[in-house]
Amino acid sequence: MPGATDSFFMRITEMHITPIALGDPPLLNAAGLHAPYCLRTVVELRTDNGLTGLAEVPGSVAVDQALAAVRDTVIGSDPLNWHALRARLAERCSPETSGARGDKPWDGRTRVQVYSAMDVACLDLAGRALGVPVATLLGGIVRDRVPYSAYLFYKFEGAGGELGFGIDREATGWAAARQQAALDPDGIVAQAEAMVAEFGFKSIKLKGGCFEPSQEVAAIKALHRRFGPDVPLRLDPNALWTVASSIQWGRELEGVLEYLEDPCRTQAGMAEVRRAIKLPLATNMCTTSFDDLPGSVRLESEDIILTDHHFWGGLHSSMELAAHCRTFGRGVSMHSNNHAGISLAAMTHLGAAMPNLSYALDTHYPWQSEEIVVGGRIQFEDGCVVLPKEPGLGVELDCDALARAHEAYRHCGLTERNDEVEMQKKVPGWKFAATRW
Amino acid sequence: MPGATDSFFMRITEMHITPIALGDPPLLNAAGLHAPYCLRTVVELRTDNGLTGLAEVPGSVAVDQALAAVRDTVIGSDPLNWHALRARLAERCSPETSGARGDKPWDGRTRVQVYSAMDVACLDLAGRALGVPVATLLGGIVRDRVPYSAYLFYKFEGAGGELGFGIDREATGWAAARQQAALDPDGIVAQAEAMVAEFGFKSIKLKGGCFEPSQEVAAIKALHRRFGPDVPLRLDPNALWTVASSIQWGRELEGVLEYLEDPCRTQAGMAEVRRAIKLPLATNMCTTSFDDLPGSVRLESEDIILTDHHFWGGLHSSMELAAHCRTFGRGVSMHSNNHAGISLAAMTHLGAAMPNLSYALDTHYPWQSEEIVVGGRIQFEDGCVVLPKEPGLGVELDCDALARAHEAYRHCGLTERNDEVEMQKKVPGWKFAATRW
Repeated sequence: MPGATDSFFMRITEMHITPIALGDPPLLNAAGLHAPYCLRTVVELRTDNGLTGLAEVPGSVAVDQALAAVRDTVIGSDPLNWHALRARLAERCSPETSGARGDKPWDGRTRVQVYSAMDVACLDLAGRALGVPVATLLGGIVRDRVPYSAYLFYKFEGAGGELGFGIDREATGWAAARQQAALDPDGIVAQAEAMVAEFGFKSIKLKGGCFEPSQEVAAIKALHRRFGPDVPLRLDPNALWTVASSIQWGRELEGVLEYLEDPCRTQAGMAEVRRAIKLPLATNMCTTSFDDLPGSVRLESEDIILTDHHFWGGLHSSMELAAHCRTFGRGVSMHSNNHAGISLAAMTHLGAAMPNLSYALDTHYPWQSEEIVVGGRIQFEDGCVVLPKEPGLGVELDCDALARAHEAYRHCGLTERNDEVEMQKKVPGWKFAATRW
Repeated sequence: MPGATDSFFMRITEMHITPIALGDPPLLNAAGLHAPYCLRTVVELRTDNGLTGLAEVPGSVAVDQALAAVRDTVIGSDPLNWHALRARLAERCSPETSGARGDKPWDGRTRVQVYSAMDVACLDLAGRALGVPVATLLGGIVRDRVPYSAYLFYKFEGAGGELGFGIDREATGWAAARQQAALDPDGIVAQAEAMVAEFGFKSIKLKGGCFEPSQEVAAIKALHRRFGPDVPLRLDPNALWTVASSIQWGRELEGVLEYLEDPCRTQAGMAEVRRAIKLPLATNMCTTSFDDLPGSVRLESEDIILTDHHFWGGLHSSMELAAHCRTFGRGVSMHSNNHAGISLAAMTHLGAAMPNLSYALDTHYPWQSEEIVVGGRIQFEDGCVVLPKEPGLGVELDCDALARAHEAYRHCGLTERNDEVEMQKKVPGWKFAATRW
């Protein structure tokens, strides 16, 4: 049924797009090495009644251009009529102008990031206008404390940011530990101990896909010995394993892992592994959009879908994904890339509202030391973020910090994430491979 | 993830359950004959900040008891934290205490009706508290005018209510036409002409399952001749046809119907028919819950799912169903039983917020002449209901009218819908058959 609405509560009058760079240590992953800075783009929407709504998405020139291209569509819209704005954005963001998900660990699509940025900023505005938290507008708060998991990385020594591979020798505690190299089971266990001590996480994920499976399985077993059976463990080889390796090493980890995330590529590959091993499989690489769900159902490709509001089109869409997971017997957890406090707040509201959240959420947050929101770094309590009680997302932009982060973006020279190029600076000739072991 | 919340915006302090009866003409359907009264139950939730939220569900002693059984759970809850209340209701309404959908045209489950009543009343409260229409809280208004279809019935002569099979000879226009018998194609065409003239509907549905298929197909063809190809037509035999009949008569109606609704029973039966005919199939009998969706996807049992917020667990759940329909390529339309203005308002907010609403909504509303909301009968403009602009559902209870309708309930002696018993009063020995032709 076509439709139109002349119902307006308030109108968006300005849309500001600010690319920023935050220091990031040299973390290893399937695609190579994190650069000394991670890129994010901050979106501010202003309304005719004097409110500002915030959102944050993975940064790249492509995303910034895609956001700028819909500015005319966004301005004049009512943030409370998300469905109407979403329909107009869909007309503007045609599928052919958007990239595909791609093979890299991160998601290369831009269209869903535009939807996500607009959905989050509109929900922030709606919450501020109506005087309620965003989680309330997603159907209601189920939990006030949202659990996150420790996210371990193989890494080279280094602090990232201006220091690059250098070290801040004055640092103590986690700030010191996050600069240490971790290239073997002992290094990973030490990293876990420091991170858990600082943040209180109750479950642990290891980003794999960096070394041959036996080494990463050894690291998981070392974590299992160190933390015992009550601390759930996850391993994410970012789809670098063959189906045969996934089955071989998956069997090795039965009874050890809470879940194995994306051991191999494609829904068919995941389905084959899933039939062969007694270990739940999670994904944010084989089932990453609503278009992928029919295939997921047909092939039974995974047990758990990791939502990420940046890539599923926003918080409303992630709630829809959760409903699909309930219907089709999938667990729900959450994927993360590097992010700052706006996204951490958005993830926390989503986690607070999702009735069938099954697992603690992933977050890269401990790996950054800067912040762009007022009050600086958001605190964890026993591994949880306490849902902000303030209207909207409950975070405000620190304009000076944003300006500094934008200045870092201008000076770092990065225009997109490219971990292969960074890795080649350390290992000349290194090449990304979609399947490695 | 377990969770708890101490976030409260307001608290429900009172829950009132009022069974009512509204006059209903002698409409024929697969299960027999409508009684002179249809039953509804009105729920009022009051809060500690002085608001009242409304909902209306199909009435029966069983539903009233199920609602009363959760009163202790509802009182003290925050209407804005629907997900939290929904989880507590799920604990109280265990599946085994709820009836199954059943074979009758209407849905016999009580649990989903409890969810629905609480969801609608809480959304009404939330909208009133926040100063926005319910459609805004469902994700935003997509259309301000929500289209409904004419809903034709075979019927005996009679007005229903106190007049029963009698006639109010003073009535004019539709009020007169709705009392006329319609037992053949000419009667159905005359009924359609009067209903379309009064309400401006742009599409037409005939409730079938009353006469052998050839007669009902003849009525559809008569409507097609009278209204032409630009007025979409639907036929609903309420699953009384065999698969073979469904295929035979479905083929006869290719190019004539917009869709054929529930010609036969079971998802497997529907899927077989769907493969054999070139006509979209709609259902509110073979796929009627989220538990049914995996089977629907596996068997490809229908093209269109008719939501009904009374049976899908409320407005939030119906929005989730719409998302499932988008994912799995189903169209969305809406089913209706007899209802009053609270449900018409709820259906209109849902229709206004549903991005992928594909068809005009069904409504029995023209068949009633009474109303329990302030202002009396809600008006249609060119077949549409204009979305109320007021906060919440946008309707207020007329306490005197409610008292009269409750008094009618007390005097009519009905405790549940039983069209078979009513039919037996006209046709002694008449028996419902799950499959007839």
